[in-house]
Amino acid sequence: MSAVSVATLNQRVDAANAEVFDRIVAADPVLVDIAPAGDVIPGMQDKMILHAGPPVDWEHMSGAQKGSCIALALFEGWAASADEAIELLSSGRISFEPNHHHDAVGPMAGTTSRSLPVYVVENATYGNRAYCRPAEWLQQFGAYSEASVAILRNWRDLQAPPLARGIRQAGGIKLKPLIAKALQMGDEIHNRPLAGSSLLAKALPPAMLQAGLSTEELKEGFTYLALNDFLFLPVSMASAKSAADPARNVDYSTVVTAMCRNGTEFGIRVSGLGDEWFTAPAGRPKGRLMPGFSEADIGGDMGDSTITETVGWGAFCLAGAPGILGQTGGTFEEALAYSRQMYEITVGVSPDYQIPALDFKGAPVGIDIRKVVETGIVPVLDSAMAHREPGYGNLGTGLVRPSIECFKAALAAFTKRYGTA
Amino acid sequence: MSAVSVATLNQRVDAANAEVFDRIVAADPVLVDIAPAGDVIPGMQDKMILHAGPPVDWEHMSGAQKGSCIALALFEGWAASADEAIELLSSGRISFEPNHHHDAVGPMAGTTSRSLPVYVVENATYGNRAYCRPAEWLQQFGAYSEASVAILRNWRDLQAPPLARGIRQAGGIKLKPLIAKALQMGDEIHNRPLAGSSLLAKALPPAMLQAGLSTEELKEGFTYLALNDFLFLPVSMASAKSAADPARNVDYSTVVTAMCRNGTEFGIRVSGLGDEWFTAPAGRPKGRLMPGFSEADIGGDMGDSTITETVGWGAFCLAGAPGILGQTGGTFEEALAYSRQMYEITVGVSPDYQIPALDFKGAPVGIDIRKVVETGIVPVLDSAMAHREPGYGNLGTGLVRPSIECFKAALAAFTKRYGTA
Repeated sequence: MSAVSVATLNQRVDAANAEVFDRIVAADPVLVDIAPAGDVIPGMQDKMILHAGPPVDWEHMSGAQKGSCIALALFEGWAASADEAIELLSSGRISFEPNHHHDAVGPMAGTTSRSLPVYVVENATYGNRAYCRPAEWLQQFGAYSEASVAILRNWRDLQAPPLARGIRQAGGIKLKPLIAKALQMGDEIHNRPLAGSSLLAKALPPAMLQAGLSTEELKEGFTYLALNDFLFLPVSMASAKSAADPARNVDYSTVVTAMCRNGTEFGIRVSGLGDEWFTAPAGRPKGRLMPGFSEADIGGDMGDSTITETVGWGAFCLAGAPGILGQTGGTFEEALAYSRQMYEITVGVSPDYQIPALDFKGAPVGIDIRKVVETGIVPVLDSAMAHREPGYGNLGTGLVRPSIECFKAALAAFTKRYGTA
Repeated sequence: MSAVSVATLNQRVDAANAEVFDRIVAADPVLVDIAPAGDVIPGMQDKMILHAGPPVDWEHMSGAQKGSCIALALFEGWAASADEAIELLSSGRISFEPNHHHDAVGPMAGTTSRSLPVYVVENATYGNRAYCRPAEWLQQFGAYSEASVAILRNWRDLQAPPLARGIRQAGGIKLKPLIAKALQMGDEIHNRPLAGSSLLAKALPPAMLQAGLSTEELKEGFTYLALNDFLFLPVSMASAKSAADPARNVDYSTVVTAMCRNGTEFGIRVSGLGDEWFTAPAGRPKGRLMPGFSEADIGGDMGDSTITETVGWGAFCLAGAPGILGQTGGTFEEALAYSRQMYEITVGVSPDYQIPALDFKGAPVGIDIRKVVETGIVPVLDSAMAHREPGYGNLGTGLVRPSIECFKAALAAFTKRYGTA
């Protein structure tokens, strides 16, 4: 396929990358619903668990992701005890598939099963939809205690329904202005979605009231909105996924369309390389640990939440979210430096999402694997820390840099397919 | 009174200023109610208008403040037309007094009359209360159209009552954690109170629901909360006033306890100098004007909102609120420089209110008139722009530096009273 000259090929790549950039920034995400995964996620089946990261089987799954699956088996009633759950999960009777194979994403372990309600975001520009389960501090980190399962049950039975009614009553919530505003309010809408959560939380009550919910339903809904600082993370993730998906499968493009981790491996997809995953061993996030834990306890980096960095948010906007340094450590100068570095490996600058501390420069959008390999600069990623063993909750918040090896492997595959770019 | 040596006097001043600093930072503001000014503001009477800034009579009042008074006369039913209102206001039958003489503050024109509901903030440490009227874009800028008066009527009849019920049902809303959080979310809680507004807006619905309000009342309240980005400004101002008041009247202190403007004059009070106002002509704020207006249209700087800078917020925290530069113009480096400069004229650093972009350094608190005069650095103040003539709404957002003359006059009075400090 590659009898063209290097100059011609590079022109084709640049044009393809410009097209991918245009598609990403043209996204117009709208929160349209919250609904059980089995009702809305394409291909979702019973006895299926979708998980964060590239494909992985039970045997190779990280401890935290295994714990999270145990909790889901209890939540779905597939098992009555953790032992029963482990037996089932290791029996081959549960299918494990990446969220990314189903237009979905999930924070941390990212595990999703059919009765778990997920946020539904539609990209109004292209009509595609993306899905994300809620964020919380126990089950998605690998805890499978009764308290952990109860969080999912409350979400399914008490909290998701009134929120969903409000969202539908409002005819959907346009997210582009909300995200643009949150990014000027100290959020990077990944590890720090406080402003996004607050803006969404204050937008919903009028519509929830209008939807004719009972006082008890309103109480559950309002209380969830009032107390949930991470309300917006799954909405942000589904927005990012809805923006990234139309940018997939553009021939000749060297732009990354997904980055994710399952606790064992970090993986990327590249637009010109279809659905192939390029993987490397998962890194270890660095940050401030909860008291009582040590570095040796930290499991491999985990989660689909790096879909936010994939479209230019998250740690790419760290310069605009210095409040996060209270959790991760580090200085404001370092945060500025991280953001500035990301312009060196990206295709363009967002016309909508601006960073005030960089004098309103747009966020860096579209990671070009050529630039990553050339410069040796890998993306900086927000992350949270989970234990290496099942059964624990959140251990803290941090940053991580992935291995450059998967970018190199992707570029090698690109060269094999298209020639030397 | 001043036979002591300069060294002894300076020791006394430093000790007094430390006491004033301690009192300001010890404040524990709690939003306890919203109620008609006449029911709660000490000394509030019928046919009385409280206004922003140091004392001023009708004749010397700025155009915008006059327009704001005309609107209030119509709102209270004291007059049936603007002409009737002007006749009444200039007749001597209305008494004009500063908000500051009644434990109150008000944004821009700051005009407050008996039936206008005001936010009530209690400083739980000292038990004192402070009051502030709501912020909006017309009447407080001098507009007296039907639309302008309707804003006040809706606030009084529809919006304030359900909010008040929720606040009381909640047993008050503790503001210290909310303010500390907002200051890490890109707010300086003066010109940019978006995060504070969002945090308060999402905190109230559960309590409003519990208060047993009707669906119609809830709808009005929730809609006001959802759509009001300046919801928090009066709460922030009343918090600041509640923090500054216990710091008044500490003998020997050279710390400023109030800064305010009425559109004609800028005035300050100093702790060791009792209730005396030291004034200078009001400045002209600089910022980005609304289309259709020119610099020549801008009236004198106006409002009690600089009570926020008095306690270390507002433009003193500009480094943490670069999003505001979209309205005011200027670069992030300039915002950093403004905040850094304020440490040179203040007594100490807030233990609670931190600026992430300065690596979580506390806000600069307690303006020392000695330092202002010594360094020639005057406080930097957030402001908004009003027209020089009555009848207009908001013209834009900006920054202003007051004249140094009132600081010099205060220091001269201090020297006269206590000796050479």
